[in-house]
Amino acid sequence: MALKLYGSPMSTCTSRVLTCLHEKDLDFELVIVDLFAGEHKQPPFLAKNPFGQIPALEDDDLTLFESRAITSYVAERFKETGYDLIRHQNIKEAALVKVWAEVESQQFHPAIAPIIFQFLVAPLQGNLPDQTVIDTNLEKLGKVLDIYEAKLTSTKYLAGDFYSLADLHHLPYAYYLMKTPAASVVNERPHVKAWWEDISSRPAFKKVAEGMNFGEK
Amino acid sequence: MALKLYGSPMSTCTSRVLTCLHEKDLDFELVIVDLFAGEHKQPPFLAKNPFGQIPALEDDDLTLFESRAITSYVAERFKETGYDLIRHQNIKEAALVKVWAEVESQQFHPAIAPIIFQFLVAPLQGNLPDQTVIDTNLEKLGKVLDIYEAKLTSTKYLAGDFYSLADLHHLPYAYYLMKTPAASVVNERPHVKAWWEDISSRPAFKKVAEGMNFGEK
Repeated sequence: MALKLYGSPMSTCTSRVLTCLHEKDLDFELVIVDLFAGEHKQPPFLAKNPFGQIPALEDDDLTLFESRAITSYVAERFKETGYDLIRHQNIKEAALVKVWAEVESQQFHPAIAPIIFQFLVAPLQGNLPDQTVIDTNLEKLGKVLDIYEAKLTSTKYLAGDFYSLADLHHLPYAYYLMKTPAASVVNERPHVKAWWEDISSRPAFKKVAEGMNFGEK
Repeated sequence: MALKLYGSPMSTCTSRVLTCLHEKDLDFELVIVDLFAGEHKQPPFLAKNPFGQIPALEDDDLTLFESRAITSYVAERFKETGYDLIRHQNIKEAALVKVWAEVESQQFHPAIAPIIFQFLVAPLQGNLPDQTVIDTNLEKLGKVLDIYEAKLTSTKYLAGDFYSLADLHHLPYAYYLMKTPAASVVNERPHVKAWWEDISSRPAFKKVAEGMNFGEK
Protein backbone atom coordinates (compact mmCIF):
# COMPACT_ATOMS: atom_id res chain seq x y z
CA MET A 1 0.00 0.00 0.00
CA ALA A 2 1.30 3.42 -0.92
CA LEU A 3 -0.82 6.52 -0.37
CA LYS A 4 0.31 9.69 -2.09
CA LEU A 5 -1.51 12.96 -1.53
CA TYR A 6 -0.91 15.74 -4.05
CA GLY A 7 -1.72 19.15 -2.61
CA SER A 8 -0.63 22.06 -0.47
CA PRO A 9 -0.74 22.22 3.35
CA MET A 10 -2.24 25.73 3.32
CA SER A 11 -5.16 24.69 1.07
CA THR A 12 -8.52 24.09 2.74
CA CYS A 13 -9.35 21.04 0.65
CA THR A 14 -5.91 19.48 1.13
CA SER A 15 -6.21 20.10 4.89
CA ARG A 16 -9.56 18.31 4.93
CA VAL A 17 -7.93 15.18 3.54
CA LEU A 18 -4.79 15.53 5.70
CA THR A 19 -6.94 15.68 8.83
CA CYS A 20 -8.73 12.51 7.76
CA LEU A 21 -5.44 10.69 7.06
CA HIS A 22 -4.14 11.65 10.52
CA GLU A 23 -7.38 10.56 12.23
CA LYS A 24 -6.94 7.21 10.50
CA ASP A 25 -3.28 6.92 11.64
CA LEU A 26 -2.19 6.25 8.06
CA ASP A 27 1.26 6.57 6.54
CA PHE A 28 1.28 8.64 3.38
CA GLU A 29 3.50 10.85 1.28
CA LEU A 30 2.52 14.48 0.74
CA VAL A 31 3.61 15.68 -2.70
CA ILE A 32 3.52 19.47 -2.84
CA VAL A 33 1.72 21.03 -5.81
CA ASP A 34 2.99 24.58 -6.31
CA LEU A 35 -0.17 26.65 -6.78
CA PHE A 36 1.70 29.91 -7.26
CA ALA A 37 3.58 28.35 -10.17
CA GLY A 38 0.25 27.10 -11.57
CA GLU A 39 1.34 23.48 -11.32
CA HIS A 40 -2.27 22.36 -10.77
CA LYS A 41 -3.18 23.62 -14.25
CA GLN A 42 -0.34 21.74 -16.01
CA PRO A 43 -0.75 18.37 -17.80
CA PRO A 44 0.91 16.16 -15.13
CA PHE A 45 -1.57 17.27 -12.48
CA LEU A 46 -4.51 17.52 -14.91
CA ALA A 47 -3.99 13.82 -15.61
CA LYS A 48 -4.82 13.23 -11.94
CA ASN A 49 -7.70 15.72 -11.75
CA PRO A 50 -9.03 17.18 -15.02
CA PHE A 51 -10.65 20.02 -13.06
CA GLY A 52 -7.18 21.27 -12.06
CA GLN A 53 -7.91 21.51 -8.35
CA ILE A 54 -5.98 20.11 -5.42
CA PRO A 55 -5.88 17.67 -3.74
CA ALA A 56 -5.64 14.34 -5.53
CA LEU A 57 -4.94 11.02 -3.84
CA GLU A 58 -3.17 8.02 -5.32
CA ASP A 59 -3.73 4.66 -3.67
CA ASP A 60 -1.53 2.39 -5.76
CA ASP A 61 -3.12 2.46 -9.24
CA LEU A 62 -6.27 4.30 -8.14
CA THR A 63 -6.37 8.09 -8.52
CA LEU A 64 -9.07 10.10 -6.76
CA PHE A 65 -9.97 13.78 -6.47
CA GLU A 66 -12.60 15.97 -4.77
CA SER A 67 -11.65 16.20 -1.09
CA ARG A 68 -14.98 14.93 0.29
CA ALA A 69 -14.89 11.88 -2.00
CA ILE A 70 -11.33 11.16 -0.87
CA THR A 71 -12.14 11.39 2.86
CA SER A 72 -15.19 9.21 2.38
CA TYR A 73 -13.10 6.62 0.50
CA VAL A 74 -10.28 6.69 3.07
CA ALA A 75 -12.72 6.39 5.99
CA GLU A 76 -14.35 3.34 4.40
CA ARG A 77 -11.29 1.63 2.90
CA PHE A 78 -9.44 1.84 6.23
CA LYS A 79 -12.46 1.46 8.48
CA GLU A 80 -10.62 -0.82 10.91
CA THR A 81 -7.65 1.59 11.29
CA GLY A 82 -7.50 4.64 13.57
CA TYR A 83 -10.65 6.55 14.51
CA ASP A 84 -13.92 5.40 12.93
CA LEU A 85 -15.18 8.51 11.10
CA ILE A 86 -18.24 6.92 9.45
CA ARG A 87 -19.80 4.78 12.24
CA HIS A 88 -19.52 1.80 9.94
CA GLN A 89 -21.04 -0.64 12.43
CA ASN A 90 -24.28 1.27 12.88
CA ILE A 91 -26.27 1.92 9.71
CA LYS A 92 -28.48 4.60 11.30
CA GLU A 93 -25.57 6.57 12.71
CA ALA A 94 -23.73 6.13 9.40
CA ALA A 95 -26.78 7.59 7.61
CA LEU A 96 -26.78 10.64 9.90
CA VAL A 97 -23.07 11.14 9.19
CA LYS A 98 -23.97 11.25 5.49
CA VAL A 99 -26.78 13.75 6.12
CA TRP A 100 -24.63 16.19 8.11
CA ALA A 101 -21.69 15.79 5.75
CA GLU A 102 -24.10 16.88 2.98
CA VAL A 103 -25.21 19.81 5.14
CA GLU A 104 -21.56 20.95 5.25
CA SER A 105 -21.34 20.59 1.49
CA GLN A 106 -24.67 22.20 0.50
CA GLN A 107 -25.41 24.69 3.29
CA PHE A 108 -22.23 25.62 5.19
CA HIS A 109 -19.69 25.58 2.38
CA PRO A 110 -21.56 27.84 -0.12
CA ALA A 111 -21.91 30.49 2.63
CA ILE A 112 -18.41 30.35 4.14
CA ALA A 113 -16.35 29.90 0.96
CA PRO A 114 -17.01 33.41 -0.47
CA ILE A 115 -16.17 34.96 2.94
CA ILE A 116 -12.80 33.21 3.10
CA PHE A 117 -12.17 34.13 -0.53
CA GLN A 118 -12.72 37.81 0.20
CA PHE A 119 -10.61 37.88 3.36
CA LEU A 120 -7.72 35.72 2.15
CA VAL A 121 -7.60 35.35 -1.62
CA ALA A 122 -8.77 38.78 -2.86
CA PRO A 123 -5.86 40.62 -1.11
CA LEU A 124 -3.37 38.25 -2.76
CA GLN A 125 -4.90 39.26 -6.10
CA GLY A 126 -4.39 42.92 -5.24
CA ASN A 127 -8.03 43.58 -4.38
CA LEU A 128 -9.66 44.84 -1.19
CA PRO A 129 -12.11 42.40 0.39
CA ASP A 130 -15.62 43.13 -0.94
CA GLN A 131 -17.60 43.97 2.19
CA THR A 132 -20.97 43.48 0.45
CA VAL A 133 -20.08 39.90 -0.48
CA ILE A 134 -18.84 39.29 3.07
CA ASP A 135 -21.99 40.71 4.66
CA THR A 136 -24.40 38.85 2.39
CA ASN A 137 -22.71 35.52 3.02
CA LEU A 138 -22.22 36.17 6.72
CA GLU A 139 -25.97 36.55 6.99
CA LYS A 140 -26.44 33.22 5.16
CA LEU A 141 -23.81 31.57 7.36
CA GLY A 142 -25.49 32.94 10.49
CA LYS A 143 -28.76 31.28 9.50
CA VAL A 144 -27.00 27.96 8.93
CA LEU A 145 -25.24 28.25 12.29
CA ASP A 146 -28.54 29.05 14.03
CA ILE A 147 -29.65 25.57 12.98
CA TYR A 148 -26.32 24.10 14.15
CA GLU A 149 -26.78 25.88 17.48
CA ALA A 150 -30.19 24.25 17.96
CA LYS A 151 -28.87 20.83 16.87
CA LEU A 152 -25.81 21.03 19.14
CA THR A 153 -28.08 21.71 22.10
CA SER A 154 -29.32 18.13 21.82
CA THR A 155 -26.24 16.27 20.55
CA LYS A 156 -22.55 16.93 21.17
CA TYR A 157 -21.59 16.70 17.49
CA LEU A 158 -23.56 17.27 14.31
CA ALA A 159 -24.54 13.68 13.50
CA GLY A 160 -24.95 12.59 17.13
CA ASP A 161 -22.89 12.20 20.28
CA PHE A 162 -19.85 11.12 18.30
CA TYR A 163 -17.23 13.01 16.28
CA SER A 164 -17.45 12.06 12.60
CA LEU A 165 -16.55 13.00 9.05
CA ALA A 166 -19.48 15.44 9.15
CA ASP A 167 -17.70 17.55 11.79
CA LEU A 168 -14.24 17.04 10.29
CA HIS A 169 -15.27 18.45 6.91
CA HIS A 170 -15.96 21.85 8.53
CA LEU A 171 -12.49 22.30 10.03
CA PRO A 172 -10.39 23.98 7.32
CA TYR A 173 -12.76 26.80 6.34
CA ALA A 174 -13.82 27.39 9.95
CA TYR A 175 -10.14 27.57 10.97
CA TYR A 176 -9.46 30.42 8.55
CA LEU A 177 -12.77 32.11 9.46
CA MET A 178 -11.75 32.17 13.13
CA LYS A 179 -8.73 34.32 12.22
CA THR A 180 -10.98 37.05 10.74
CA PRO A 181 -13.37 39.59 12.29
CA ALA A 182 -16.18 37.30 11.07
CA ALA A 183 -15.26 34.85 13.86
CA SER A 184 -18.05 36.47 15.86
CA VAL A 185 -20.58 34.42 13.87
CA VAL A 186 -19.21 31.38 15.72
CA ASN A 187 -18.37 33.03 19.06
CA GLU A 188 -21.86 34.49 19.46
CA ARG A 189 -23.41 31.01 19.45
CA PRO A 190 -22.35 29.16 22.62
CA HIS A 191 -22.96 25.59 21.45
CA VAL A 192 -21.34 26.22 18.08
CA LYS A 193 -18.38 27.84 19.85
CA ALA A 194 -17.97 24.86 22.21
CA TRP A 195 -18.24 22.45 19.25
CA TRP A 196 -15.62 24.42 17.32
CA GLU A 197 -13.24 24.44 20.30
CA ASP A 198 -13.72 20.72 20.74
CA ILE A 199 -13.22 19.62 17.13
CA SER A 200 -10.34 22.00 16.44
CA SER A 201 -8.39 20.78 19.46
CA ARG A 202 -8.19 17.16 18.29
CA PRO A 203 -4.53 16.19 17.76
CA ALA A 204 -5.10 15.18 14.11
CA PHE A 205 -6.30 18.66 13.19
CA LYS A 206 -3.78 20.52 15.37
CA LYS A 207 -1.02 18.86 13.39
CA VAL A 208 -2.64 19.97 10.11
CA ALA A 209 -3.34 23.52 11.33
CA GLU A 210 0.41 24.10 11.80
CA GLY A 211 0.73 24.17 8.01
CA MET A 212 -2.33 26.34 7.39
CA ASN A 213 -0.72 29.73 6.95
CA PHE A 214 -2.64 30.96 3.91
CA GLY A 215 -2.63 34.74 3.68
CA GLU A 216 0.10 35.11 6.32
CA LYS A 217 3.36 36.89 5.61
CA MET B 1 -39.96 -1.68 6.60
CA ALA B 2 -41.85 1.47 5.71
CA LEU B 3 -40.25 4.12 3.54
CA LYS B 4 -41.97 7.51 3.41
CA LEU B 5 -40.66 10.25 1.17
CA TYR B 6 -41.84 13.80 1.90
CA GLY B 7 -41.52 16.04 -1.13
CA SER B 8 -42.98 17.20 -4.42
CA PRO B 9 -42.71 15.38 -7.77
CA MET B 10 -41.79 18.60 -9.62
CA SER B 11 -38.86 19.35 -7.30
CA THR B 12 -35.38 18.53 -8.58
CA CYS B 13 -34.16 17.18 -5.25
CA THR B 14 -37.28 15.08 -4.69
CA SER B 15 -36.90 13.70 -8.23
CA ARG B 16 -33.30 12.72 -7.49
CA VAL B 17 -34.48 10.53 -4.61
CA LEU B 18 -37.53 9.20 -6.49
CA THR B 19 -35.28 8.06 -9.34
CA CYS B 20 -33.06 6.24 -6.88
CA LEU B 21 -36.04 4.54 -5.18
CA HIS B 22 -37.31 3.33 -8.57
CA GLU B 23 -33.85 2.07 -9.63
CA LYS B 24 -33.82 0.08 -6.37
CA ASP B 25 -37.34 -1.34 -7.03
CA LEU B 26 -38.46 -0.23 -3.59
CA ASP B 27 -41.99 0.26 -2.29
CA PHE B 28 -42.49 3.64 -0.67
CA GLU B 29 -45.14 6.21 0.08
CA LEU B 30 -44.78 9.71 -1.37
CA VAL B 31 -46.21 12.31 0.99
CA ILE B 32 -46.75 15.59 -0.85
CA VAL B 33 -45.36 18.73 0.80
CA ASP B 34 -47.22 21.77 -0.56
CA LEU B 35 -44.45 24.25 -1.38
CA PHE B 36 -46.85 26.94 -2.57
CA ALA B 37 -48.60 26.83 0.81
CA GLY B 38 -45.16 27.05 2.49
CA GLU B 39 -45.64 23.70 4.21
CA HIS B 40 -41.86 23.07 4.15
CA LYS B 41 -41.34 26.08 6.44
CA GLN B 42 -43.89 24.94 9.04
CA PRO B 43 -43.04 23.10 12.29
CA PRO B 44 -44.19 19.59 11.24
CA PHE B 45 -41.80 19.57 8.27
CA LEU B 46 -39.06 21.51 10.09
CA ALA B 47 -39.02 18.68 12.63
CA LYS B 48 -37.93 16.41 9.76
CA ASN B 49 -35.48 18.88 8.17
CA PRO B 50 -34.57 22.00 10.16
CA PHE B 51 -33.34 23.64 6.93
CA GLY B 52 -36.92 23.62 5.59
CA GLN B 53 -36.07 22.01 2.26
CA ILE B 54 -37.62 19.00 0.58
CA PRO B 55 -37.23 16.07 0.41
CA ALA B 56 -37.01 14.17 3.67
CA LEU B 57 -37.10 10.38 3.98
CA GLU B 58 -38.41 8.34 6.87
CA ASP B 59 -37.24 4.75 7.19
CA ASP B 60 -39.14 3.57 10.26
CA ASP B 61 -37.74 5.70 13.11
CA LEU B 62 -34.87 7.17 11.06
CA THR B 63 -35.41 10.57 9.42
CA LEU B 64 -32.99 11.78 6.76
CA PHE B 65 -32.70 14.86 4.57
CA GLU B 66 -30.38 16.27 1.87
CA SER B 67 -31.18 14.41 -1.36
CA ARG B 68 -27.63 13.17 -2.03
CA ALA B 69 -27.32 11.76 1.51
CA ILE B 70 -30.67 10.01 1.07
CA THR B 71 -29.74 8.40 -2.27
CA SER B 72 -26.41 7.29 -0.86
CA TYR B 73 -28.12 5.77 2.17
CA VAL B 74 -30.79 4.03 0.07
CA ALA B 75 -28.21 2.66 -2.38
CA GLU B 76 -26.19 1.20 0.48
CA ARG B 77 -28.99 0.04 2.79
CA PHE B 78 -30.68 -1.81 -0.07
CA LYS B 79 -27.55 -2.80 -1.94
CA GLU B 80 -28.89 -6.28 -2.75
CA THR B 81 -32.17 -4.94 -4.19
CA GLY B 82 -32.71 -3.57 -7.71
CA TYR B 83 -29.89 -1.96 -9.65
CA ASP B 84 -26.53 -1.57 -7.85
CA LEU B 85 -25.90 2.19 -7.96
CA ILE B 86 -22.70 2.21 -5.87
CA ARG B 87 -20.67 -0.76 -7.19
CA HIS B 88 -20.58 -2.13 -3.68
CA GLN B 89 -18.57 -5.21 -4.61
CA ASN B 90 -15.67 -3.31 -6.14
CA ILE B 91 -13.96 -0.81 -3.86
CA LYS B 92 -12.13 0.97 -6.71
CA GLU B 93 -15.26 1.42 -8.80
CA ALA B 94 -17.15 2.47 -5.66
CA ALA B 95 -14.47 5.12 -5.03
CA LEU B 96 -14.86 6.49 -8.55
CA VAL B 97 -18.63 6.68 -8.05
CA LYS B 98 -17.93 8.84 -4.97
CA VAL B 99 -15.54 11.06 -6.95
CA TRP B 100 -17.97 11.74 -9.80
CA ALA B 101 -20.92 12.15 -7.44
CA GLU B 102 -18.85 14.89 -5.75
CA VAL B 103 -18.12 16.40 -9.17
CA GLU B 104 -21.89 16.72 -9.70
CA SER B 105 -22.24 18.34 -6.29
CA GLN B 106 -19.25 20.73 -6.41
CA GLN B 107 -18.81 21.51 -10.13
CA PHE B 108 -21.99 20.78 -12.09
CA HIS B 109 -24.62 21.80 -9.55
CA PRO B 110 -23.27 25.28 -8.68
CA ALA B 111 -23.23 26.14 -12.41
CA ILE B 112 -26.59 24.67 -13.47
CA ALA B 113 -28.68 25.62 -10.41
CA PRO B 114 -28.68 29.41 -11.05
CA ILE B 115 -29.60 28.81 -14.71
CA ILE B 116 -32.62 26.72 -13.79
CA PHE B 117 -33.56 29.26 -11.14
CA GLN B 118 -33.59 32.07 -13.70
CA PHE B 119 -35.53 30.14 -16.33
CA LEU B 120 -38.09 28.47 -14.06
CA VAL B 121 -38.32 30.12 -10.64
CA ALA B 122 -37.78 33.81 -11.41
CA PRO B 123 -40.86 33.99 -13.72
CA LEU B 124 -43.01 32.45 -10.96
CA GLN B 125 -41.83 35.27 -8.70
CA GLY B 126 -42.89 37.82 -11.31
CA ASN B 127 -39.35 38.53 -12.58
CA LEU B 128 -37.82 38.20 -16.01
CA PRO B 129 -34.92 35.72 -16.23
CA ASP B 130 -31.64 37.61 -15.63
CA GLN B 131 -29.68 37.01 -18.83
CA THR B 132 -26.36 38.04 -17.23
CA VAL B 133 -26.71 35.37 -14.55
CA ILE B 134 -27.67 32.82 -17.21
CA ASP B 135 -24.72 33.70 -19.46
CA THR B 136 -22.13 33.70 -16.64
CA ASN B 137 -23.24 30.32 -15.38
CA LEU B 138 -23.67 28.86 -18.85
CA GLU B 139 -20.01 29.63 -19.46
CA LYS B 140 -19.09 27.86 -16.20
CA LEU B 141 -21.32 24.92 -17.10
CA GLY B 142 -19.74 24.72 -20.56
CA LYS B 143 -16.29 24.36 -19.00
CA VAL B 144 -17.51 21.58 -16.72
CA LEU B 145 -19.14 19.80 -19.66
CA ASP B 146 -15.93 20.11 -21.70
CA ILE B 147 -14.33 17.91 -19.06
CA TYR B 148 -17.31 15.53 -19.13
CA GLU B 149 -17.00 15.36 -22.93
CA ALA B 150 -13.35 14.30 -22.64
CA LYS B 151 -14.15 11.79 -19.89
CA LEU B 152 -17.10 10.29 -21.79
CA THR B 153 -14.83 9.69 -24.76
CA SER B 154 -13.03 7.02 -22.74
CA THR B 155 -15.84 5.63 -20.54
CA LYS B 156 -19.54 5.25 -21.25
CA TYR B 157 -20.61 6.81 -17.95
CA LEU B 158 -18.91 9.25 -15.60
CA ALA B 159 -17.41 6.83 -13.10
CA GLY B 160 -16.65 4.11 -15.66
CA ASP B 161 -18.48 1.80 -18.06
CA PHE B 162 -21.39 1.42 -15.67
CA TYR B 163 -24.37 3.64 -14.81
CA SER B 164 -24.16 4.78 -11.19
CA LEU B 165 -25.36 7.25 -8.59
CA ALA B 166 -22.88 9.73 -10.07
CA ASP B 167 -24.85 9.84 -13.33
CA LEU B 168 -28.25 9.62 -11.63
CA HIS B 169 -27.62 12.73 -9.53
CA HIS B 170 -27.42 14.86 -12.69
CA LEU B 171 -30.84 13.91 -14.05
CA PRO B 172 -33.31 16.38 -12.51
CA TYR B 173 -31.48 19.64 -13.25
CA ALA B 174 -30.36 18.43 -16.67
CA TYR B 175 -33.97 17.46 -17.47
CA TYR B 176 -35.21 21.01 -16.85
CA LEU B 177 -32.19 22.48 -18.66
CA MET B 178 -33.04 20.47 -21.79
CA LYS B 179 -36.41 22.26 -21.96
CA THR B 180 -34.70 25.68 -22.24
CA PRO B 181 -32.68 27.40 -24.97
CA ALA B 182 -29.60 26.57 -22.88
CA ALA B 183 -29.98 22.91 -23.96
CA SER B 184 -27.40 23.70 -26.64
CA VAL B 185 -24.67 23.41 -23.98
CA VAL B 186 -25.43 19.68 -23.93
CA ASN B 187 -26.37 19.20 -27.59
CA GLU B 188 -23.14 20.77 -28.86
CA ARG B 189 -21.05 18.12 -27.11
CA PRO B 190 -21.67 14.75 -28.82
CA HIS B 191 -20.54 12.45 -25.99
CA VAL B 192 -22.38 14.47 -23.36
CA LYS B 193 -25.48 14.43 -25.56
CA ALA B 194 -25.30 10.63 -26.03
CA TRP B 195 -24.77 10.19 -22.28
CA TRP B 196 -27.77 12.41 -21.51
CA GLU B 197 -29.97 10.49 -23.98
CA ASP B 198 -28.88 7.22 -22.43
CA ILE B 199 -29.34 8.10 -18.76
CA SER B 200 -32.60 9.99 -19.27
CA SER B 201 -34.19 7.07 -21.12
CA ARG B 202 -33.85 4.61 -18.23
CA PRO B 203 -37.33 3.46 -17.12
CA ALA B 204 -36.77 4.60 -13.51
CA PHE B 205 -36.20 8.20 -14.58
CA LYS B 206 -38.88 8.22 -17.29
CA LYS B 207 -41.43 7.40 -14.61
CA VAL B 208 -40.16 10.29 -12.47
CA ALA B 209 -40.00 12.76 -15.37
CA GLU B 210 -43.75 12.40 -15.90
CA GLY B 211 -44.26 14.38 -12.69
CA MET B 212 -41.62 17.01 -13.43
CA ASN B 213 -43.78 19.82 -14.73
CA PHE B 214 -42.22 22.75 -12.87
CA GLY B 215 -42.85 26.03 -14.63
CA GLU B 216 -45.50 24.53 -16.92
CA LYS B 217 -49.06 25.82 -17.02
